Amino acid sequence: MASIPDFHAVIPAGGAGTRLWPLSRAAHPKFLLDLTGAGRTLLQQTWDRLAPLTGTEGIGVVTGSKHADAVQNQLPALAPRNLWIEPGPRDSMAAIGLAAALLAHRVGPDSILGSFAADHVIGDQEEFAAAVRSAVETARAGYIVTLGMRATHPSTAFGYIRAGDALADATPAARAVAEFVEKPDAETAAEYLASGHYFWNAGMFIFRTGVLLEHLARLHPQLHAGLVEIAAAWDTDQRASVLERVWPSLTKIAIDHAIAEPVAASGGVAVVPAKFAWDDVGDWAALRDLIPAVGENTILRTGDFPDAPEPIIRDGAANLVVPAAGRQVVVLGLTDAVVVDTPGALLVASREQAQQVKEIVDALRAGGSAEVL
Amino acid sequence: MASIPDFHAVIPAGGAGTRLWPLSRAAHPKFLLDLTGAGRTLLQQTWDRLAPLTGTEGIGVVTGSKHADAVQNQLPALAPRNLWIEPGPRDSMAAIGLAAALLAHRVGPDSILGSFAADHVIGDQEEFAAAVRSAVETARAGYIVTLGMRATHPSTAFGYIRAGDALADATPAARAVAEFVEKPDAETAAEYLASGHYFWNAGMFIFRTGVLLEHLARLHPQLHAGLVEIAAAWDTDQRASVLERVWPSLTKIAIDHAIAEPVAASGGVAVVPAKFAWDDVGDWAALRDLIPAVGENTILRTGDFPDAPEPIIRDGAANLVVPAAGRQVVVLGLTDAVVVDTPGALLVASREQAQQVKEIVDALRAGGSAEVL
Repeated sequence: MASIPDFHAVIPAGGAGTRLWPLSRAAHPKFLLDLTGAGRTLLQQTWDRLAPLTGTEGIGVVTGSKHADAVQNQLPALAPRNLWIEPGPRDSMAAIGLAAALLAHRVGPDSILGSFAADHVIGDQEEFAAAVRSAVETARAGYIVTLGMRATHPSTAFGYIRAGDALADATPAARAVAEFVEKPDAETAAEYLASGHYFWNAGMFIFRTGVLLEHLARLHPQLHAGLVEIAAAWDTDQRASVLERVWPSLTKIAIDHAIAEPVAASGGVAVVPAKFAWDDVGDWAALRDLIPAVGENTILRTGDFPDAPEPIIRDGAANLVVPAAGRQVVVLGLTDAVVVDTPGALLVASREQAQQVKEIVDALRAGGSAEVL
Repeated sequence: MASIPDFHAVIPAGGAGTRLWPLSRAAHPKFLLDLTGAGRTLLQQTWDRLAPLTGTEGIGVVTGSKHADAVQNQLPALAPRNLWIEPGPRDSMAAIGLAAALLAHRVGPDSILGSFAADHVIGDQEEFAAAVRSAVETARAGYIVTLGMRATHPSTAFGYIRAGDALADATPAARAVAEFVEKPDAETAAEYLASGHYFWNAGMFIFRTGVLLEHLARLHPQLHAGLVEIAAAWDTDQRASVLERVWPSLTKIAIDHAIAEPVAASGGVAVVPAKFAWDDVGDWAALRDLIPAVGENTILRTGDFPDAPEPIIRDGAANLVVPAAGRQVVVLGLTDAVVVDTPGALLVASREQAQQVKEIVDALRAGGSAEVL
């Protein structure tokens, strides 16, 4: 499979994935974990999907200093010059904007950049590659392009993309984005699904770096100026001092609000329908459904403690058991439960209540129990 | 409270309590654990109940070499000469018979000995003392005496004692034991309860040592001869060699079958009704019911990891949570569940299925997973 000319990718690698506590913790965030039992972490799987399309030198990762070593260890082929360490989290526009400004500076404004989250699960590599190729083609025509995930059920956990008309100047599959909409209630989600005009929004964006920077200069001139200044200093001995001065002043805003929504309103965003299965592994229930069951239950081995004994599960079904502390786990007479055994903490929950872990973690954090988070 | 003249006690401390796995394990058997959150282990609570009746010098413990150090550590007031270490388990007749033979040898055949399991829970110290005093008085008259536990529900988990006539030559409360019966089915248990003539059999026996040894000489002469030989050598430098030669030859038999049942058949066993609450803490369900609930759930702190964070239990009730590994435990949306978190193993079970742990442990043992048992 040939790589795509001028195509580069950035993987913003941040966020703890609190809803997957205690497996996903501040020190071991979701993207650093093998959550599908594939033998590769979500970050590594993201890399594996992109490298054939960009070439090894074409992928950059934006992450915080806390996780930089882990990222480099997990991705030995990542060029050190493409490991971009944020001095502090300033939301996705700053992270992706930094990558765009760097690429425009290093390669030129016609370079194409795609942004792909580090912690999503994607089913079919060939369909992924096909969608990205189509998106890149559409991006060359000057659009900010997003991949539209096929909505398979009326989810209230995702934002949606309302597709508009086909685009004469792009690939046949591409359509204009009429509107991005926030997570709907169940009734609205059902209407979206029935209409056939809505996709799930996975936050994947593909664009010419020059196009993105023009939009940014128009919509957020100060943020644009700051990123361009940082990019110019990045490969010099001025990087640290410029970062220290400029980075904290950058507006904290998501790329969705900064660029995607306003540009869509003026007809500048296109959506390319994706045919691959996708999930953002938002909580334990989603994770259970992603992993093939073994018999009547699902066991997720994370790669920690590979010699840990096999969990024993009896007289129950549809349980998700995560034996990630090396101990003998025995589950008797439970159904639809989630059991997550880690060295620092234990979660036992019904599938329905497992979403509550986010609140629990927030409460523990407020109470100062940082060591288990 | 005055101690009872000539009264001694033996505490056979053996048995792993497999149904309380993984808290109770071969290396940490039930009697060495604080299973009621009282701050004292079951063995220590047994000691605390008996010491006022026997005096400190009047209690002996029979245990295996594996647990001898732990027993001595938990019972610093136990005289080393009263810590009787079995070379290997040979069932309760050998253990109690050894204590009886030793006491007869050291003190004389009119000494009274009571045998009390190391791992039972008893509710009311004063009622316990009253029952023991009454039993000792009856034992002086020459009976093998057992304490009859008040049957409060038609349990199928206990053996029963059928009471016969009152005894003219003993305390007013004492009655002859007509029969010991095995664990009944539910229907039979209900009939027992309705009849008013049945007690639960807790395996507590009180007797004159000379009386017991006479019965033993008649019913199991070889076992009697072996125990008498060992007792004569115990306080000499011949103990080790005699034990090594004789102990392995002793018949493995429970005192119930060796003495209680045959002697009851010929009218030599009395039962003294007990008025205290009693439980043998046979499984997790029993344990949950023994411990006062905190709010809607029950938390058992075993004394390990006293600094462990408080478990978080939400949207569920009637759960038993045992945080004995020092970790943060979170239980969400479960009802009537048992969660036992120990360093070596984790059990999550419905209350109904928790009894299955015995089979699981047996299977693990057969599979060679000795380290978690």
